[in-house]
Amino acid sequence: MRKNYLLTPGPTPLPPQVCEAMSRPIIHHRTPQFQAILKEANEGLKYAFQTQNDVFILASSGTGAMEAAVANLLSAGDTALVVQAGKFGERWTELCKAYGVTAEVISVEWGKAVDPAQIQKSLKANPKIKAVFTTLCETSTGVATDIEAIGKIVKDGEAALVVDAISGLGAIDLKSDAWGVDMVVSGSQKGLMLPPGLGFISLSSKAMKLIEASKSPKYYFDLRKAKKAIDKTDTPFTPAITLIIALVEVLRMMKQDGLENIFSRHRKMADATRAAVKALGLVLFAPDAASDAVTAAVVPQGLDGEKLVKTMRDTYGVTIAGGQDEMKGKLIRIAHMGFIEELDIIAGISCLEKVLTQMGYKFQLGAGVKAAEEVFLK
Amino acid sequence: MRKNYLLTPGPTPLPPQVCEAMSRPIIHHRTPQFQAILKEANEGLKYAFQTQNDVFILASSGTGAMEAAVANLLSAGDTALVVQAGKFGERWTELCKAYGVTAEVISVEWGKAVDPAQIQKSLKANPKIKAVFTTLCETSTGVATDIEAIGKIVKDGEAALVVDAISGLGAIDLKSDAWGVDMVVSGSQKGLMLPPGLGFISLSSKAMKLIEASKSPKYYFDLRKAKKAIDKTDTPFTPAITLIIALVEVLRMMKQDGLENIFSRHRKMADATRAAVKALGLVLFAPDAASDAVTAAVVPQGLDGEKLVKTMRDTYGVTIAGGQDEMKGKLIRIAHMGFIEELDIIAGISCLEKVLTQMGYKFQLGAGVKAAEEVFLK
Repeated sequence: MRKNYLLTPGPTPLPPQVCEAMSRPIIHHRTPQFQAILKEANEGLKYAFQTQNDVFILASSGTGAMEAAVANLLSAGDTALVVQAGKFGERWTELCKAYGVTAEVISVEWGKAVDPAQIQKSLKANPKIKAVFTTLCETSTGVATDIEAIGKIVKDGEAALVVDAISGLGAIDLKSDAWGVDMVVSGSQKGLMLPPGLGFISLSSKAMKLIEASKSPKYYFDLRKAKKAIDKTDTPFTPAITLIIALVEVLRMMKQDGLENIFSRHRKMADATRAAVKALGLVLFAPDAASDAVTAAVVPQGLDGEKLVKTMRDTYGVTIAGGQDEMKGKLIRIAHMGFIEELDIIAGISCLEKVLTQMGYKFQLGAGVKAAEEVFLK
Repeated sequence: MRKNYLLTPGPTPLPPQVCEAMSRPIIHHRTPQFQAILKEANEGLKYAFQTQNDVFILASSGTGAMEAAVANLLSAGDTALVVQAGKFGERWTELCKAYGVTAEVISVEWGKAVDPAQIQKSLKANPKIKAVFTTLCETSTGVATDIEAIGKIVKDGEAALVVDAISGLGAIDLKSDAWGVDMVVSGSQKGLMLPPGLGFISLSSKAMKLIEASKSPKYYFDLRKAKKAIDKTDTPFTPAITLIIALVEVLRMMKQDGLENIFSRHRKMADATRAAVKALGLVLFAPDAASDAVTAAVVPQGLDGEKLVKTMRDTYGVTIAGGQDEMKGKLIRIAHMGFIEELDIIAGISCLEKVLTQMGYKFQLGAGVKAAEEVFLK
């Protein structure tokens, strides 16, 4: 007998409503029955994305939606500004490269957030920049970006502001319209509490103008086709039916909870997790710009970070994430978003304490759980 | 109370094993636990695709996998030969256009199959052709293509043979390796008995050579990335975890049944369906090249085909498909693939008889069901 706890920044655990919805007999997608579901999904997404713009549902993972942004907005020879502060910022750069787009890169040290003034400087220095690519929550480092400040800078210029909110949407605040975001890209398996397999992308009128000029080859991710379809409450290609039916369930849950309550719940879990790891003597990787979706902490010197994650998962059933790429083996990352709540955090911290002890790390047993409890009691 | 019957050529009904698998708690994809599942899926796909080549799993619908074929094999300015015998053949032409590939099109009348000799002629006349795009089962017309004969023609030349087997794989025979198919494209929601959301693409060494020369922009569908990942039993991007877990279930079912038994079951259901609609006085749309995956029949003159489909679905819960594009309102299409069996066909034909009668069409009540029963008794 083993009970599993999933505390990774994607996928996140599935609510029982989602499991139930996915196990229903499937229906055909070109029917009034599915159209009613799609209509509710499209409307619910506007609420979750805090936008009046269309939010398109793609049958792809988040990276597919990121590619849709680049391929639809730009053409070979265009210039884009990329904020690169981790693995997922790098993905924007790679996507630009794949499409022959010149990426002017603002390289930010892993664990730090970009200074919005740098974006202002770059935009002034290079008026050719057609799009600014950023990341709401850089999952590889646990850093949250100040999109509101960036929006103020980009808003009045020619360039479109694109935010990769794959990790973060539905967990931390992103006022798409109020902050002037032209394209919000997301995925299903994080704050939206679904399995992976859906990509999302919203589209402002400013972005729509760029799309009309883009010459990049595209078909499956062509947002002009998606726009024509959504206007008839349809999809250009066969949608991922079961995932969309489950999406309607989570959008109802989110509307019932209310975004403000959802965000404050995430803030509390983040505070608790940060307090807990600090109480264990661990150092936060991103102390100045920590995201409320995932906490990254540095593995204490002398301990094998990969073994720590592996033991928690394979011996005790608690799956957290380790570090990626340059931080491989050096970080632990604990997610606190989506269908993760207080007692999941307590379970995760308790298991962390157990394995740290077994690995010979010295600290006061129970200190992490106690620190988290103190936050939850506030 | 209403019980629903799904007899459409995608999605097809889900076996209970699939519904159960999708409702399990989700697991993380970068773990040994998921790797074991992916390994079984990769091996099972080779069996289902009748190939020793890698079969890549994409988080997309079938069209995404079709785009992967074009974008990976070819570059702008290249020439391809497209067999266009319906809506899905046209999709190959549109994809070529999107990537600046010159499509030499063999246009075949809807309801007919291509004559392989035409392909031979085109290949001889134009040695520049780098790829031949075909469709195993043209869902829009119910026509099956003679891939074995086409394979013999394309095999020894320079061009790669690509088969859209989205509709058909797992329902009718496609000996990928033995027939010399270089790329087989498929989707999850037809013969493979899953919800939509997975695309598949196999890759021969001949196709791999073309891929190395292709300059088309791509990232999410880049098969070089997919190849690197599959060699480590991994995926380049977040996979559609729940669908892959369910895929393992259907691949087990298919292996247990055996492909030969599966194909002969489909043949029998197709024979029964064809006999039934003929007994009702309906005319088969593709009498000379009828696919064993879906039967298309012409709506009798004077009857409203759209109303027929709508009444069966909205009043009686039996969903069949109508005609698409130029055949809108003029066809009914009844699928007999995947998790559809004898008695589903009987139910579908019985409902068809009921609604035809109500619409004033004259025939001997029960004649369709009787004709199907006779075939099933053989």
